[in-house]
Amino acid sequence: MHLRALPPQAVAMVSTLEEIIAIVRACAEHRTPIIPYGAGTSLECHVGAPQDGVSIDLSGMKRVLRVNPEDQDCTVEPGLTRSALNEALRHTGLFFPVDPGADATIGGMAATRASGTTTLRYGGMRENVMALSVVTADGRVIKTARRARKSAAGYDLTRLFVGSEGTLGIIADVTLKLHPAPEAMSAAVCAFASARGATSTVVEAIQGGLPLARAEYLDAAAIGAVNGVFGTTYPVSDALFLEFHGSAEEVAAHAERARSIAAENGGGEFRWAVETEARNQLWKARHNAGLAALSLRPGARPWSTDVCVPISQLPDCIDATKQDIAALPFPAIVIGHIGDGNFHVILLLDSASPEESDAARRFNDALVARAIAMDGTSTGEHGIGMGKRECLRQELGAAVDLMADVKRAIDPHFLMNPDKIFLSCANAQPT
Amino acid sequence: MHLRALPPQAVAMVSTLEEIIAIVRACAEHRTPIIPYGAGTSLECHVGAPQDGVSIDLSGMKRVLRVNPEDQDCTVEPGLTRSALNEALRHTGLFFPVDPGADATIGGMAATRASGTTTLRYGGMRENVMALSVVTADGRVIKTARRARKSAAGYDLTRLFVGSEGTLGIIADVTLKLHPAPEAMSAAVCAFASARGATSTVVEAIQGGLPLARAEYLDAAAIGAVNGVFGTTYPVSDALFLEFHGSAEEVAAHAERARSIAAENGGGEFRWAVETEARNQLWKARHNAGLAALSLRPGARPWSTDVCVPISQLPDCIDATKQDIAALPFPAIVIGHIGDGNFHVILLLDSASPEESDAARRFNDALVARAIAMDGTSTGEHGIGMGKRECLRQELGAAVDLMADVKRAIDPHFLMNPDKIFLSCANAQPT
Repeated sequence: MHLRALPPQAVAMVSTLEEIIAIVRACAEHRTPIIPYGAGTSLECHVGAPQDGVSIDLSGMKRVLRVNPEDQDCTVEPGLTRSALNEALRHTGLFFPVDPGADATIGGMAATRASGTTTLRYGGMRENVMALSVVTADGRVIKTARRARKSAAGYDLTRLFVGSEGTLGIIADVTLKLHPAPEAMSAAVCAFASARGATSTVVEAIQGGLPLARAEYLDAAAIGAVNGVFGTTYPVSDALFLEFHGSAEEVAAHAERARSIAAENGGGEFRWAVETEARNQLWKARHNAGLAALSLRPGARPWSTDVCVPISQLPDCIDATKQDIAALPFPAIVIGHIGDGNFHVILLLDSASPEESDAARRFNDALVARAIAMDGTSTGEHGIGMGKRECLRQELGAAVDLMADVKRAIDPHFLMNPDKIFLSCANAQPT
Repeated sequence: MHLRALPPQAVAMVSTLEEIIAIVRACAEHRTPIIPYGAGTSLECHVGAPQDGVSIDLSGMKRVLRVNPEDQDCTVEPGLTRSALNEALRHTGLFFPVDPGADATIGGMAATRASGTTTLRYGGMRENVMALSVVTADGRVIKTARRARKSAAGYDLTRLFVGSEGTLGIIADVTLKLHPAPEAMSAAVCAFASARGATSTVVEAIQGGLPLARAEYLDAAAIGAVNGVFGTTYPVSDALFLEFHGSAEEVAAHAERARSIAAENGGGEFRWAVETEARNQLWKARHNAGLAALSLRPGARPWSTDVCVPISQLPDCIDATKQDIAALPFPAIVIGHIGDGNFHVILLLDSASPEESDAARRFNDALVARAIAMDGTSTGEHGIGMGKRECLRQELGAAVDLMADVKRAIDPHFLMNPDKIFLSCANAQPT
């Protein structure tokens, strides 16, 4: 089932709030499932239509509705992509930092509680969404909050909808925190003799309070793939991609501390990227590592999974994961936002081979079980979707029943993005 | 009604999770309301028993269950106070920053989404609670999350319970983020010729990205009360209490930038407090300003209200509020966490006078309406309780119905802390 295409019966291209409401009301009347769609970059089958229904394509709703530079916030339509938002902000001195890699839509990022490379310093969507307008399954429109930086007014509906994966309503606009563009930035790549050297460097930096803006790990297989596809010349070994933001003095001081910690952990020279173009190239290589991995086995089907553990557990978790990878009958790479304790494994399997599918499933089960045993989570940022429903139960037990109670209260006919997070049938029984 | 004592029929002093469960089950069986109680420092009648019932006093559950210095987190029982937690952390190099002023319990602070003087830099309970164990109205125990720094696993139940004011369940333990104690700290008090000078200083500092750790405003009446009660000698004028955290170099650089912005806005000399004892005295004066205000009218009943607005609106909001205060028939002070756009007004009224009560109510209504008109919130940190239910509707409209749907799903008989956030009767009707 993993990653199988599950097309809807119809696609509605909407361009206004009123159109969303009209379609939702029509669907509600006919008890037809509704599947919100942004850029289609999610990884756990969030946009599939297992119960048929109408996909509501929000990619045409991409206006910046309002920028408040003096309050460092903005309100945008859900179909705007993060890169288009940052383009629109270019002359304000502000930027929107959340960077999941893909050029996802802001609505999709809110719906899946996206995070990514800069979450270590700026937080993810959980921290950066201030308010949402949402159309619920009965066609009501609610506004979850106003623009105050904090509030104690009632339940935190903003964060209830952030990460609800389209199962509680359709996000119609998003108010976001913005951040001042840092005065100075520098990035560096450092090669290590072992995964342990790279992971320990980041753990020690975090524990020492060093403010890293990005701390990304790529294993040797990922570096090899990146070099092969993009013509880069990084040493083929485990590597850290680091970035520092702040004043020129802070950036220099933080980079020097990082260099010293890396050296104590067997790290090589820092290869610097300070100018914008050089930094962009470096992060392009990082962001496209997953794509580059496809070159390791042309024609293979990629399966991208992720977990997140408390930082002290990260070196052991990655070492054990790499041992499991060594025993797989197909190639795989490990990359991740390890400053948050979060990493991805991309498995490259032959989808025609039941043996390989079984091996991949066993690998993923073991990965999730290990993360949970370390008091971590079955998914740091990809979400539950259809792929990790059983993992969610394994991770949170009876809390999942309470989530289903909330789902039932807000969407009693289970019309909103069915079978994501929970199976609709099991939970749609009247209580 | 405001602040009227509403005692419960019985108080249960609990010391274990099992005792909480036993009492909740007994109450559920007899449809008896349950009112969780911590330190009793909340300000909107959160611990009153308007429908009778049993108060569950959690102040005896005050153990630190686990500290994970390497992950910078800890798990504590709900009755532990924030000062007791910081005392327990004293030798770890870590601290728990959230500081609402009162020595509240961690469970109460989570339940009311507390924030306070350091929220500007470290976030409030919304940002610093990682996970909760909760006993729901039917006696179930759920764990909302594990210890990963981020997760995309299902609905964000942690943040649903943070700020739910005891209306969804009883918090039985809390897992908190901790922060490395800053290498250096310094604090300063600066007097201004006008409220506008003080507020503009903070707005410009925030807009310029200056990392303030604390930015507190006290009006001249508050300063006068503090001087009178505590023997301090601050100039009796509008004042800022500022604090800077970081490396010694950062603290010096940030303080110098703040001094320069203050000077441009008519601020006087910075009166520094660098040593721990001097800083403690300064913050003691700030924290006890509300108490000191009682001296302005001995025997008066204090009514403490709060709002929070986008930072660009703050100077206008405070100016208009101070004009309203000038027209009141009783004294009042303005103090607040203005770096977040959040401030308090403490009204000192004669509770025997219906005219004064009416004037206070009109003042509060106008304050809330102004904050909402500025796209702010009716309460930045005090919560809704019984005092601001109508304000919540005014602020969020139909979203309150959705909150009530969630309430009904999790606590169908409205046993948990009735009449807080919503009136039980109105919302307990079957849908």
